[in-house]
Amino acid sequence: MDQEQGERPAAPLRIRLDFGYDGTDFSGWAAQPGLRTVEGTLSAALTTILRAEQPVRLTVAGRTDAGVHARGQVAHFDPDPTAWAALPGRSTRTPAEAALSRLRGILPADIGMRAVAVAADGFDARFAALQRRYLYRLADRPELVDPLRRRETVVTKRALDVESMHAAAQELLGLNDFGAFCKRRAGATTVRTLLDYSWRRAEDGTLEATVVADAFCHSMVRSLVGAVVPVGEGRKGVHWPAEVMRAAVRDAAVVVMPPHGLSLEEVVYPDDAGLAVRARESRVRRTLDRSEPPSA
Amino acid sequence: MDQEQGERPAAPLRIRLDFGYDGTDFSGWAAQPGLRTVEGTLSAALTTILRAEQPVRLTVAGRTDAGVHARGQVAHFDPDPTAWAALPGRSTRTPAEAALSRLRGILPADIGMRAVAVAADGFDARFAALQRRYLYRLADRPELVDPLRRRETVVTKRALDVESMHAAAQELLGLNDFGAFCKRRAGATTVRTLLDYSWRRAEDGTLEATVVADAFCHSMVRSLVGAVVPVGEGRKGVHWPAEVMRAAVRDAAVVVMPPHGLSLEEVVYPDDAGLAVRARESRVRRTLDRSEPPSA
Repeated sequence: MDQEQGERPAAPLRIRLDFGYDGTDFSGWAAQPGLRTVEGTLSAALTTILRAEQPVRLTVAGRTDAGVHARGQVAHFDPDPTAWAALPGRSTRTPAEAALSRLRGILPADIGMRAVAVAADGFDARFAALQRRYLYRLADRPELVDPLRRRETVVTKRALDVESMHAAAQELLGLNDFGAFCKRRAGATTVRTLLDYSWRRAEDGTLEATVVADAFCHSMVRSLVGAVVPVGEGRKGVHWPAEVMRAAVRDAAVVVMPPHGLSLEEVVYPDDAGLAVRARESRVRRTLDRSEPPSA
Repeated sequence: MDQEQGERPAAPLRIRLDFGYDGTDFSGWAAQPGLRTVEGTLSAALTTILRAEQPVRLTVAGRTDAGVHARGQVAHFDPDPTAWAALPGRSTRTPAEAALSRLRGILPADIGMRAVAVAADGFDARFAALQRRYLYRLADRPELVDPLRRRETVVTKRALDVESMHAAAQELLGLNDFGAFCKRRAGATTVRTLLDYSWRRAEDGTLEATVVADAFCHSMVRSLVGAVVPVGEGRKGVHWPAEVMRAAVRDAAVVVMPPHGLSLEEVVYPDDAGLAVRARESRVRRTLDRSEPPSA
């Protein structure tokens, strides 16, 4: 009896959602009263299909700002197991299959639900994430803008030299204090590991940045882009962004670029065996840091 | 005196426009009273900047249907030379530069003007065109649809075998009567030369068709796609589309696919020396044929 009572409670049912969205018509991820947000829209849809009495609460990998897009967003929620099991009704589908089908039926066209699955033990969309990968799209001539991709392409006033932008970006890699590129939040760390920051000219002539880090502080990707654009224009030297970074205080010369060029492309998690360990580690580290949630 | 009067009049001023559009919110290219069309919108913008008394009339390379997109559309118009010369005002820009800048200022975001130029002698956007290239995008699983590209991606109900679709498409190449794939118009020829019709699975997992011909009859690309989709589904054999074609009469079993998967990507013209010759040839041939204008 004692032994049985001392056992850990069974792991709660946790559901992983993989999805994308066109951020154009959303006021960002985070639910806000009276505004159309991705979290609010998705939570309402889940609450409907689960017939939940309380709004379903979601935990997300990357809290995107208003206008920012996502192709590889991940979130989780913990449904009431009875409501979850009831989802297929009389059909032979699994609850996850039924949820995917019904979510696709009621979500608006600017949210694309890719997958619904029972999460592996220890999975946490936010704390188990190892890496987040963002993409930023720039056109340095207006004729490069494909009208069909105008919602995800930012036009610059001047022509850009992609080689010098890429060179400047390389100097920012590694474990650094990115305070110069972050909107400060009280008590939040701005130390991050920038794993990749590459610029290339894509086949269609636009400039694409790939930015990968363990996590991002607020407005960090858009500031990292804003820091190298003056280099590409020839107005700043190739070492300038690294100098700004070393000062570690927010620099008014760094422009926070517009949101609509930005998209969260991918969130990387450990395999199932590593998940439980990673979730525990992250929680401890973040608590010590009093860190804000990762966002862009 | 006689000699001077007998001389050909100076070639009229002809302007070439290169542009693209997101066809989602347009009722196609051709101007129609009370509807928002690409031609109507573009003509109104040109009429405004040229302060013309009569609406500017445009000739287009590919008359796209409602919902069809374009990345490489070409049109021409013949402005009053005095109004054209007045475009730069007191600036040092050329009239073409001034026109491009002012058009970009007043055109809506779903039309992207790439270039404005004085056309080479003999240029005709419609009759001088050698080839038109279209793209059609399909997703055979809903999770493949990037929410940012949902306006240009058609979702099929079943999984598709791209190899058999490509094989079926190869049997349609060459000079053929495409009457089976055209909406008939009285007195119009349906003989066309299909130069390329290829299917491939793109990097993002969607299926892309490239379709190139000298010209297209009405609904031809969307019917060519509709003819091979049942092959990809396994419902029809790989030779079925060619059999349908050989019957040369419109076949109800061929579905005209939705417009929003289609985009006019490129129009190919001869070099400047070849232009005048080509324009003369095309005009004669079309007149003999009593052919309808090329469209998709």
